[in-house]
Amino acid sequence: MARNTQVPAEHDAPPITKILAGYVASHPSRGWSDAVDHEAHRTFLNWLGCAVGAARHEAADAALAAIAELQPAPQATVAGRSERVDMASAALVNGITSHTFDFDDTHLKTIIHPAGPVASALLALAEHKGLDGREVVDALVLGIDVACRLGNLVYPEHYDRGWHITGTTGMLGAAAGCARLLKLDAQRTQMALGIAASQPIGLREQFGTMTKPFHPGGAARAGLMSALLAAQGFTASPRALEAPRGWAQVVSTKTAWNEATDELGERFEISFNSYKPFACGIVIHPSIDACVQLRERGVRAEQVERIELRVHSLVLELTGKKEPADGLEGKFSVYHGCAAGLIFGRAGEPEYEDAIVNRPDMVALRRKVVATVDDSIDEASADVTAVLTDGRQVHVFVEHAIGSLQRPMTDAMLEGKFTQLAQPVIGAERTRGLIEACWGLGRAPDLRALTALARP
Amino acid sequence: MARNTQVPAEHDAPPITKILAGYVASHPSRGWSDAVDHEAHRTFLNWLGCAVGAARHEAADAALAAIAELQPAPQATVAGRSERVDMASAALVNGITSHTFDFDDTHLKTIIHPAGPVASALLALAEHKGLDGREVVDALVLGIDVACRLGNLVYPEHYDRGWHITGTTGMLGAAAGCARLLKLDAQRTQMALGIAASQPIGLREQFGTMTKPFHPGGAARAGLMSALLAAQGFTASPRALEAPRGWAQVVSTKTAWNEATDELGERFEISFNSYKPFACGIVIHPSIDACVQLRERGVRAEQVERIELRVHSLVLELTGKKEPADGLEGKFSVYHGCAAGLIFGRAGEPEYEDAIVNRPDMVALRRKVVATVDDSIDEASADVTAVLTDGRQVHVFVEHAIGSLQRPMTDAMLEGKFTQLAQPVIGAERTRGLIEACWGLGRAPDLRALTALARP
Repeated sequence: MARNTQVPAEHDAPPITKILAGYVASHPSRGWSDAVDHEAHRTFLNWLGCAVGAARHEAADAALAAIAELQPAPQATVAGRSERVDMASAALVNGITSHTFDFDDTHLKTIIHPAGPVASALLALAEHKGLDGREVVDALVLGIDVACRLGNLVYPEHYDRGWHITGTTGMLGAAAGCARLLKLDAQRTQMALGIAASQPIGLREQFGTMTKPFHPGGAARAGLMSALLAAQGFTASPRALEAPRGWAQVVSTKTAWNEATDELGERFEISFNSYKPFACGIVIHPSIDACVQLRERGVRAEQVERIELRVHSLVLELTGKKEPADGLEGKFSVYHGCAAGLIFGRAGEPEYEDAIVNRPDMVALRRKVVATVDDSIDEASADVTAVLTDGRQVHVFVEHAIGSLQRPMTDAMLEGKFTQLAQPVIGAERTRGLIEACWGLGRAPDLRALTALARP
Repeated sequence: MARNTQVPAEHDAPPITKILAGYVASHPSRGWSDAVDHEAHRTFLNWLGCAVGAARHEAADAALAAIAELQPAPQATVAGRSERVDMASAALVNGITSHTFDFDDTHLKTIIHPAGPVASALLALAEHKGLDGREVVDALVLGIDVACRLGNLVYPEHYDRGWHITGTTGMLGAAAGCARLLKLDAQRTQMALGIAASQPIGLREQFGTMTKPFHPGGAARAGLMSALLAAQGFTASPRALEAPRGWAQVVSTKTAWNEATDELGERFEISFNSYKPFACGIVIHPSIDACVQLRERGVRAEQVERIELRVHSLVLELTGKKEPADGLEGKFSVYHGCAAGLIFGRAGEPEYEDAIVNRPDMVALRRKVVATVDDSIDEASADVTAVLTDGRQVHVFVEHAIGSLQRPMTDAMLEGKFTQLAQPVIGAERTRGLIEACWGLGRAPDLRALTALARP
């Protein structure tokens, strides 16, 4: 006999599933500022560069080999690959590759990486359906808004419990965006959100394995399929997000309902998206940034006697590896990061290759970095002094690293990052063309030119 | 800057991911009693009947229409349908249909419906790969064992929080079973469980919508894909089930680790599987059973003056609808259930059609049922007395209803249920053949004959 269990408290939850669905279905195309619209293009460019860049990673190979078992129809592009697969599988793989290098975008309020689930679903669906770029940009802004607003609603308790929030809100953002692309009415959009609500994907325990980037990929796929199901009349609870046994109350003890609806249609969470300039944990970024600035001020590795680094204790706690043996260990070494910043002026994925980490000049320079803990310095800052062999000292203080909301990467920097990621995979010419295609997304009559350029 | 959150307590969790993977990979074929093996066949038969029976439901139509958008390869059978789709989609749809009538199997300790996720994945994979029936039966026993053991580990706290436990353990059972079918070694089986652990599917809020049966379907699909990914070298945490931020501790406050491993390979949870004889909530079953027994003792509707029903208060609380207007309401009416038991000797899906609920003789008889609350009677029991027009009284007391663990349905009853479900969809001849094919599953050289019979 089934147990007669108690229903959790209602907490006067507002009908957010319905409200968000109505918003997604009816908000005007480009119903936001030029700055928001441009941020959507920056988000798309950054996402696509990450996806192309990791296209040859063994996680992509394994995922595509598994998908090949299903004999997929060639409906949609896998960024950076020649294979074409059905649109749901393309959403999955592009979501995986975009997060494989941990180099994708970050909504800093929730540490959601929103483009992975949302853009991966949208590109696949729009490509197959022959939709135009304006529809994709609209759906991207709205889908990311839904995912991040729902993230705000449950963060940080939800994340602290162990959920990888990118995949546990991302399926809702992807469902919202795909519902928009499919022009579902408010009622069917509500069903799409409802179907997706049953499919949160991601445990933090998976960090360090291929299943971590699987989370945004799986969320992209789940969101896309939820919208396709809703379009066919598949039903779900109209209160799937807010009901006592609905998504928010099941996955989180915090349920700040107002986060879902405050300033809806006026404040867009994509405005708070950020992009990593360096292919490592964000805690090292101020130190690398400072060393890049030293280089820009003329400091050369061969002139350096030592580099005095003063940082918050957390930096050395998380990334204090003095003698990294390979690229992966290099990501946990502020010493290597500083050397890369000074020698290369950057710290992208290539600067974390094993050969670079072990290159004699890099090893020599990182050993000249003397790090001191100073908790009067914020975690987001770094104080660096280069002491040169001629006795001169060059001092740089970074309050907020490049890539932070206070000092966002410029469009040119995003292009540089994109190029570094994409060029080894698709070549220089396609890379240049693809950058242009991304900036022109909102005006593209369809996605054929863009997706053709994204294949090698 | 990312928050530095506290890691939850370890609770000395044993390495259950590894232990269960080793068990699934290495337990001998048919390494259990004949009774266990026969139960697997009963589970399979009951599952397939439910799936075929609901094949024309609008939930199946909507799901297949959405899947058709992916242009799936015709790899595997959708039970009761002529369409063939890729094996992952077949797993999804068969999982949906098998749970659509709420008529599938129940592991009573956890109220998991284990066959939906597990058998749906196995049939699709085995059909496409040309595997034999013995392998399917082995994988079914082991997959259901994994799902239900993990259910025992977290039940009831996990269910009380709002998770639909069938889909939140089912992906693990499906992954285990598919890993077994694919002959993955222990290490890759561990990865399959790990990948699946990130994908629990199902909120209780969805009850009453198509997303409820989507849960076992989605779990079947997720488990199958997890095994395919693991086979290709995709990685996950080797401690995905038990780690502090792993599945069990994220989705439940109860983590009775011993439930995963006690008597492993000696006690098989499929032994505790049960099958519903009546297509309604289990709380009405004792009353219907009693009325079926009245009929068997010669009582006819036209002889009845009144039926005196004494039941636990919960029965009337949940199913006290006196004048049900249609089939759906009929499922919440113990009065209709009693009338069906006496007039038809059964209460399958056809006895819940709108026309039957409103048939004059049914309405007249259900109005003669006088229900009295008596909390000295257990929820699992019912006391029924037929008072006849000639003054005679016929009394039946049901302690445990047919279909309970104490009074399991006989094989003949399961065949009758199967026939009632399948015959309207695939016809009498195929229905008889399919029943034989199910009983012979463990000896089938491949699944071609069985799946051919399951199509109309």
